[in-house]
Amino acid sequence: MTTEETSSEVTTTGPTAGSPAGSPAPSRRSLIGWGGAGLALGAVAAGGTVAALRTGEDAVPIADSGAAVAFHGAHQAGIATAVQDRLHFAAFDVTTTDRAELVQLLKDWTAAAALMTAGRPVGEGAYGGLAEAPPDDTGEALGLKPSRLTLTIGFGASLFAKGRFGLDAKRPDALVDIEKFPGDNLDASRSGGDLCVQACADDPQVAVHAIRNLARIGMGKTAIRWSQLGFGKTSSTTPDAQTPRNMMGFKDGTRNIAGTDAPDLAKHVWVGEKDGAKDGSAWMTGGSYLMARRIRMHIETWDRTSLQEQEDVFGRDKGEGAPVGKAKERDEPFLKAMKPTAHVRLAHPDSNHGVKILRRGYSFTDGTDGLGRLDAGLFFLAYQRDVRKGFIPLQRSLARNDALNEYIQHVGSALFAVPPGVRDKGDWWGRALFS
Amino acid sequence: MTTEETSSEVTTTGPTAGSPAGSPAPSRRSLIGWGGAGLALGAVAAGGTVAALRTGEDAVPIADSGAAVAFHGAHQAGIATAVQDRLHFAAFDVTTTDRAELVQLLKDWTAAAALMTAGRPVGEGAYGGLAEAPPDDTGEALGLKPSRLTLTIGFGASLFAKGRFGLDAKRPDALVDIEKFPGDNLDASRSGGDLCVQACADDPQVAVHAIRNLARIGMGKTAIRWSQLGFGKTSSTTPDAQTPRNMMGFKDGTRNIAGTDAPDLAKHVWVGEKDGAKDGSAWMTGGSYLMARRIRMHIETWDRTSLQEQEDVFGRDKGEGAPVGKAKERDEPFLKAMKPTAHVRLAHPDSNHGVKILRRGYSFTDGTDGLGRLDAGLFFLAYQRDVRKGFIPLQRSLARNDALNEYIQHVGSALFAVPPGVRDKGDWWGRALFS
Ligand code: HEM
Ligand code: HEM
Repeated sequence: MTTEETSSEVTTTGPTAGSPAGSPAPSRRSLIGWGGAGLALGAVAAGGTVAALRTGEDAVPIADSGAAVAFHGAHQAGIATAVQDRLHFAAFDVTTTDRAELVQLLKDWTAAAALMTAGRPVGEGAYGGLAEAPPDDTGEALGLKPSRLTLTIGFGASLFAKGRFGLDAKRPDALVDIEKFPGDNLDASRSGGDLCVQACADDPQVAVHAIRNLARIGMGKTAIRWSQLGFGKTSSTTPDAQTPRNMMGFKDGTRNIAGTDAPDLAKHVWVGEKDGAKDGSAWMTGGSYLMARRIRMHIETWDRTSLQEQEDVFGRDKGEGAPVGKAKERDEPFLKAMKPTAHVRLAHPDSNHGVKILRRGYSFTDGTDGLGRLDAGLFFLAYQRDVRKGFIPLQRSLARNDALNEYIQHVGSALFAVPPGVRDKGDWWGRALFS
Repeated sequence: MTTEETSSEVTTTGPTAGSPAGSPAPSRRSLIGWGGAGLALGAVAAGGTVAALRTGEDAVPIADSGAAVAFHGAHQAGIATAVQDRLHFAAFDVTTTDRAELVQLLKDWTAAAALMTAGRPVGEGAYGGLAEAPPDDTGEALGLKPSRLTLTIGFGASLFAKGRFGLDAKRPDALVDIEKFPGDNLDASRSGGDLCVQACADDPQVAVHAIRNLARIGMGKTAIRWSQLGFGKTSSTTPDAQTPRNMMGFKDGTRNIAGTDAPDLAKHVWVGEKDGAKDGSAWMTGGSYLMARRIRMHIETWDRTSLQEQEDVFGRDKGEGAPVGKAKERDEPFLKAMKPTAHVRLAHPDSNHGVKILRRGYSFTDGTDGLGRLDAGLFFLAYQRDVRKGFIPLQRSLARNDALNEYIQHVGSALFAVPPGVRDKGDWWGRALFS
């Protein structure tokens, strides 16, 4: 991009292009570049057509991977949103002990998130090329499209600890301490966290930029506890799209809650109005619970396993992804044709009193483990209305019986209460919790 | 992708579509899927139009990111090739002591690389859905486009050690032991290696799949020593395209050897016919030397630095990327206008007796470092005809004087002799070295 190709005026591609739904078009003042060199930030904001979709009941899968996903809405984006290609996930420890400081941070994060998800740099208004100050935005996403970036915040149980921020009475019963499941080999330094932010985008640089800028804004008040890059989505939430394959080579996400399935979302994903009536967690209405598990795969063992065994493990064939005895991926599974230890048989709603979760995981590869083995696997992310009726009973059954256990190990775990969406410009992440 | 949408016949999009230049069209036998489920591998091969470009003198930047890059040619692909978006890089230790076994491995790798870069699964011919055997291909790239995958092999100095494989007389003088530069803080477990494979692709799953399958094929003969995922390219080699930004927010690769610049490639990148005449390394003619450095950035310190200081460090402005005192990114730098410690001033050919290297690095983020800081930076990859006239003198100067040093640290280092291209189906990686 050269300056000739762009102007410092925003080229809108529609009434709300380049600006979060409901907010005014970006002011010219906010578009003045660093050092007066006339960097055309307008071109950034207009880098993708804005599909101003609301997430949730009326969510629609988005095809244009350069587009922006609306930040404001009844639910946070990044849950029902059609799964983006890449992930950067961070869990934070809150280091300040001051409630007001934490609240201010959440407000600052919200403002930054609204800008970044619209494809705009952080620091609107304060953006005048002050040479003596650090830039408001770190810059590595300048010139990149919004790339369907979504930023989704969650609150961990530790945030609600007595005597910390006065939130103990508001801790939802559903935000349980996760039990140790058989086979778990959890690394504390990859587990837990007071806060989390899930950044999903079709361009990894956009996701990394977002987490990095939130970390920067949080300096002195929070510190990253752990983070995870996911290079490839597994578990699509768009049944009509090509199903991605996980690192075991199997299609993943064939049967999943679709982002467009309003009844399933209402029943299994969004916290209902009555859910929090008794335990002081009415603030979670319209939110969800995110279970994150870092699941290492024993890649080398798996790769030496026969095709038959691999297919038995899942209860689906590897090429097409069809359930045992069936021809097509989308054919209804006949569970009794599968081995009793088959992953799909055990995980299927019919084996779990109708339990359904919305899976939104990503493949990871984090180098090697010092023994010459790839440190690769699935960063499992699942959203549900209540983990006590979602992940926990499912995982109890899987941890005991799943044939897959020979090839995987859960090495990280974290549960977060994901509040409802930020409704409008005056609203902020956690307002209902802190008010 | 469902089986209805595709056929098990290859849909060619041109005379050489889906097959490496010069090889016959894939046989139908090679396209039979796992378990007889009729998986249409043909659709994989035909997933992208094949831009059958030869790399090197007549290389042309490729626009279609689904396309295949020709594997065969005078030079290996992945050097002059227009830089792809994502990287998976692996360094291997050779664990076998048997020369014949190593040679066979290199042949097997070559065959697999030719298939994978064409968007086809490993195991052509032997691919009949044998349920009792492990699959020939791990499967996670099935259904994905070739994504301009290139696989580039290199040989480390340790491979030439006396008494190992009888290669000591063929070790090029240019394959030096890299000195310790001031400020280096090298981690041995992220340095060196007998072999390396650089996998670049526009889809990270395609790059990860390729390295993982080479590792699998190498089991028992090699083991991954270290590996590095690069989520975003820095240093483009296509001057007309938008210059990517590195994790410091600056445009990177503005002044670089272009993949289309035949005179510069011949002068600075490809090993010439006479280069190896004296030291027994004539086998390197048409090859190059790859210097890999894992450079950690002190992100948090950088982010607190004023814009002025950031721009002084590089000698370019942050928004546009223009050299000090100039208006446009592509304007000729006026070195004397820059601080004597400015990175660009120090790295410019005019300050280094005309030295030029071809930079092809990637940004990385590997979680956090245990102190709440992002383990992020630049995985620096540079190709040159001779490191003694390329990277080494440059880095000697930078390590001493570069203002950037306050914000970075070199933590990994490896040098590889990258042999010339695989000419045709009978040829293989390292043939000239081992013959
Ligand atoms: C590395 C670990 C895992 C891998 C590789 C994996 C892979 C798969 C695959 C290939 C399928 C079939 C395709 C599909 O319908 O999506 C599947 C289905 C499923 N998995 Fe997993 N999975 C893993 C862990 C888990 C965990 C920890 C849970 C929950 C506790 C889970 C819950 C499910 C559910 C609910 C289904 C759909 C079952 C159905 O309705 O048919 N998975 N998984
Ligand atoms: C984290 C470390 C580094 C960063 C962030 C960095 C960044 C940059 C940037 C922003 C530019 C200006 C734009 C351009 O022309 O590409 C540049 C130029 C350049 N850098 Fe680096 N660089 C790093 C390390 C190195 C190293 C280790 C070397 C070689 C030893 C190197 C060699 C060069 C060269 C040759 C140029 C072009 C100079 C010219 O011809 O104007 N860089 N670098």
